Amino acid sequence: MGKGKICAQVAHASLGAALEAMKKKPSWFEEWTKGGQKKVVLKVGSLKELLEIYQKARDLGLPAFLVKDAGLTQVEPGTVTAVAVGPAPEEEVDKVTGHLKLL
Amino acid sequence: MGKGKICAQVAHASLGAALEAMKKKPSWFEEWTKGGQKKVVLKVGSLKELLEIYQKARDLGLPAFLVKDAGLTQVEPGTVTAVAVGPAPEEEVDKVTGHLKLL
Repeated sequence: MGKGKICAQVAHASLGAALEAMKKKPSWFEEWTKGGQKKVVLKVGSLKELLEIYQKARDLGLPAFLVKDAGLTQVEPGTVTAVAVGPAPEEEVDKVTGHLKLL
Repeated sequence: MGKGKICAQVAHASLGAALEAMKKKPSWFEEWTKGGQKKVVLKVGSLKELLEIYQKARDLGLPAFLVKDAGLTQVEPGTVTAVAVGPAPEEEVDKVTGHLKLL
């Protein structure tokens, strides 16, 4: 994927998880907004790892969003491209993504 | 800025504009959501051009969000890094950004 396409996937994931938090964890959303809506973009080594991140976030009850691309441009339809975890308390997010490196 | 940092700016802008639309143009937000929340990431040639894009969107009454980075990592505090325009009807957004190239 090109740089803009990657950024769009990150934005899809971020918005999806933020909207979920607004509905299901409004106090977490509010705290996150007060703190400037911090976002950290990380990378994984494989699709398997990405799906495990998503599952672990779900298991811990954290807001999470998995992006499947419509596949109209650069990738096959349904390709999983990104996962967002949180907004949630930082120590909770770190349980899931704390070991990953920055993109 | 590194790739992840750029993606974070895009996500900040995207979320900011989406939340504005939710409040001020709920029908536009709903239409956009039905259509899969399409996002297109574009580039400008200068800060001046970026600020003009933002102003033009405002003048047309479109949701828009300008990102000023907190400057804790890769750029100076207050650096303008990205602008989001919309969600809005595609022909409205195109009046502002239709001439720009993909990032």
